[in-house]
Amino acid sequence: MTEPVIALTKALIAEKSISPDDKNCQQIIIDRLKPLGFVIEEVNIGNTKNLWAYHGDSTGKTLMFAGHTDVVPAGDESKWNCPPFEPTIDKNGILYGRGAADMKSGVAAMVCAAESFVKKYPEHAGRVAFLITSDEEADASDGTVKVVDLLIKRQEHIDYCIVGEPSSDSVFGDQIKNGRRGSLTANLVVHGIQGHVAYPHLADNPVHRFAPVLNELVATVWDNGNQYFPQTTMQVANINGGTGAENVVPGELSVQFNFRYSSELTDEMIKSKVDAILQKHNLNYTLNWRLSGQPFLTPQGELTDATASAIKAFTQVDTKLSTSGGTSDGRFIAKLGCQVIEFGVINKTIHKVNENVNCQDIITLQAIYIDILEKLLLA
Amino acid sequence: MTEPVIALTKALIAEKSISPDDKNCQQIIIDRLKPLGFVIEEVNIGNTKNLWAYHGDSTGKTLMFAGHTDVVPAGDESKWNCPPFEPTIDKNGILYGRGAADMKSGVAAMVCAAESFVKKYPEHAGRVAFLITSDEEADASDGTVKVVDLLIKRQEHIDYCIVGEPSSDSVFGDQIKNGRRGSLTANLVVHGIQGHVAYPHLADNPVHRFAPVLNELVATVWDNGNQYFPQTTMQVANINGGTGAENVVPGELSVQFNFRYSSELTDEMIKSKVDAILQKHNLNYTLNWRLSGQPFLTPQGELTDATASAIKAFTQVDTKLSTSGGTSDGRFIAKLGCQVIEFGVINKTIHKVNENVNCQDIITLQAIYIDILEKLLLA
Repeated sequence: MTEPVIALTKALIAEKSISPDDKNCQQIIIDRLKPLGFVIEEVNIGNTKNLWAYHGDSTGKTLMFAGHTDVVPAGDESKWNCPPFEPTIDKNGILYGRGAADMKSGVAAMVCAAESFVKKYPEHAGRVAFLITSDEEADASDGTVKVVDLLIKRQEHIDYCIVGEPSSDSVFGDQIKNGRRGSLTANLVVHGIQGHVAYPHLADNPVHRFAPVLNELVATVWDNGNQYFPQTTMQVANINGGTGAENVVPGELSVQFNFRYSSELTDEMIKSKVDAILQKHNLNYTLNWRLSGQPFLTPQGELTDATASAIKAFTQVDTKLSTSGGTSDGRFIAKLGCQVIEFGVINKTIHKVNENVNCQDIITLQAIYIDILEKLLLA
Repeated sequence: MTEPVIALTKALIAEKSISPDDKNCQQIIIDRLKPLGFVIEEVNIGNTKNLWAYHGDSTGKTLMFAGHTDVVPAGDESKWNCPPFEPTIDKNGILYGRGAADMKSGVAAMVCAAESFVKKYPEHAGRVAFLITSDEEADASDGTVKVVDLLIKRQEHIDYCIVGEPSSDSVFGDQIKNGRRGSLTANLVVHGIQGHVAYPHLADNPVHRFAPVLNELVATVWDNGNQYFPQTTMQVANINGGTGAENVVPGELSVQFNFRYSSELTDEMIKSKVDAILQKHNLNYTLNWRLSGQPFLTPQGELTDATASAIKAFTQVDTKLSTSGGTSDGRFIAKLGCQVIEFGVINKTIHKVNENVNCQDIITLQAIYIDILEKLLLA
C-alpha cells in the first residue's frame, strides 16, 4: 500500500501514544502542515499536547477538522494477531493496530485531505483548521475543552467542524453522528468492615451488601430514548474489592459505572435515581459523580448535507444521521456554536483486541473530506 | 516469674521465628526432651523444620501434643508497648510478645507438662509424643501435613492429639475446639466481550452477567449447620473487573469466594450447587476450586471428657465444645484417625499488635495437660 494516507496512518499507529501521551504524533502532523503554510500553535497543558492550526483567511468560512492522537491501552497483547503498535496490513487490505480505527486513520485522512486541498487551491476562500489533542480517551480535561475555551476567549469564529471519529457502523459511510448522548460517571465506594472469612459475623462484606444493588442497577430501564436519541444505558466499567488474600473479607468495594444518557434525562435525574436505589438497600457508601458531557445536537443543515452527498458520491451509500454511541470531543466543540458532526471509518473494533480498519475506506475518507472542503469553502 | 514454663515461653518468644523460620525454637525443645529419654526425629523439608518425638511404648495408647514454633510478622513495631521479640511481663502478670498466645505458651506448656509427667512416671504406659512444625502460619505445605503423611506411611498409631492452639475465647478454659469447618475456595472468571461503554450492544459486560449470580450466591442459605457445626458461610474475598479506564466495558471479571462449611455438606455438594447457579444464569465462565481442608470432627468422648474435667478441676470453668473459627493443623492430623482437639490459652490478641497471654493461664494450662496425660495414659 503506497498511498500517502496509509503511510501516515501506519506512522501514527507506530507511535505508542497511550492517552494522554502523544509520543511524536503531533510533530509528524506539524511536519506535514507547516510546509503548506499552516499557522501552527502548540497548546500544551500538563501531559497533554494540543495543536491548533489553520490555513487561509478568517474573513471567510472556517471548516475545522478535529481529532485525537491518543489511544486506549492494547489490553491483552497475547490475544492480538500482530503487535498492537506494529501496524500490519493483511492480504485483504485490512490494517491492524491500536488506533487503526479510533482514530489515527481519521487524523491521517484529514491531514492528507487538507494537504491535497491546499496544494490544489492555495488561494482558497476561508480557512481549513485543525484542533488535535492527545487527551480524548482518558480525562479529556486538558485537551479539546481547554483549546475551545481559548478559541472562545479569542472570539475565533468556526462555522463547521468535522470530528474524524469512526462514526460508521456496519458499512463505511452508513452513519454521520450529528449529536451525542450525555456521559456521566459514578465513582462509588461501598464501605464495610474487613475481617477474617472464618468469622463473617465480625466483618461486614461490602461485596455482599452491594449484590442486590448491582442487580437492580443492571436491571433498571432508565428511559426509552426519543426521536433523536437511543435509550440511556448504564455500564459498570470497573469493580474492585479484596486484599488479594483468600481468607480476608474486604473492607471496601470500589465500583465505577457510566451512563450514556439521552435528552429525556438530566444528570440530576440520574443521580437522584441512583441515590434512591443505594439508600433503599441501606448501603454505607461514598459516591462521587463526574459529568463528562451534556447531550448535544446539530440538526440537518449545510454540513450534514455536504457530508451526506459526498458519501453518496464516493460510496453509493445513503447515510443516516445518528446520535448513538459514545461521547467525543464534539461535546466541547458544540460550545463554539458551530455545526459539528462526526464522520469517519467503521467503529466495530475500536478499543478491542485486533482493532482494524479497511485501507480502502481510509483512502475514500480522504476523498470525502476533500469533497466537503470543496463544497463548503469554494462555494 | 520463676516458673520453668514461663521461662521456656519467654525463651521461645525471644527467637524471632517468623514463618517458616524456626530459628532455634525446636533445638530448645529437643534439649529439654532428649535428656528425658525421648526419641527425637527431625523431619526438615525445604525451609521448614519439623520435630517428631516420643517417649514410651507403642503397645499402649499414644497421646500426641501438636503445635508450631512459627509466628506471623510483628506488624507495626512502633505500636507495640515492648519490642515484640523481647518478652516482657507487666505488673499484672501479663506476658507480651509475638507468639505469646499463638502459640509459644502452648508449646512451652506441653513440653513442661511432658517433662513433669515423664519425671513422675518414668515407666508410664503408652507414649507421650510431639509433632512440632515451623510452617503453620504461612503455606502449611511442608509442615504437619508432611509429617502426618510420614506417620501414616509408617503405620504409626496415634490415639489422642491435643493441638495447643489458643482455643479459649473470653475466659481461659471456656472453649475446646473439637473440629473445624471445611474450607473451599472458588476462583471464578466470568468471560464477556470487551468494548466501549458507549456501544454496549457490541460488548458483553461480565459484571452485568454476574450481577444476578452474585445476588443469588449471597442470598443462598447453604445449610443450617448441625449440633457440632455452625451454618456454612460463603464470603467473596476478591472481585476484580475492568481496565481502569472509565469508558471500557471489561472483558473479564475475576471473583474469588470462600466457603467455610459444616459436615452437612461435602465439597462436591457445594461445587455442584454453585455450578447449577452459574449455569442457570447462562454464564460463560471458567471455575477452579481449591480445597484447603475437609471438615473434621471429634465427637464427645474420652479426649474431650478428660479435657473438660481437667479444665473444670483447675479453673472451675464449664467448657464448651466448638467447631467455629479458622482452619488449623488439626485438619491434617485428623487423617491419622485419632481423636483430635485444640485446647489452649485465650485467642483474643493473636496476630495483633501487643499479642499477650496471662502467665497464670500458662501455668494452669501445663497443669491441665498433666492431668489429661494422667487420665488417659495411666488409666
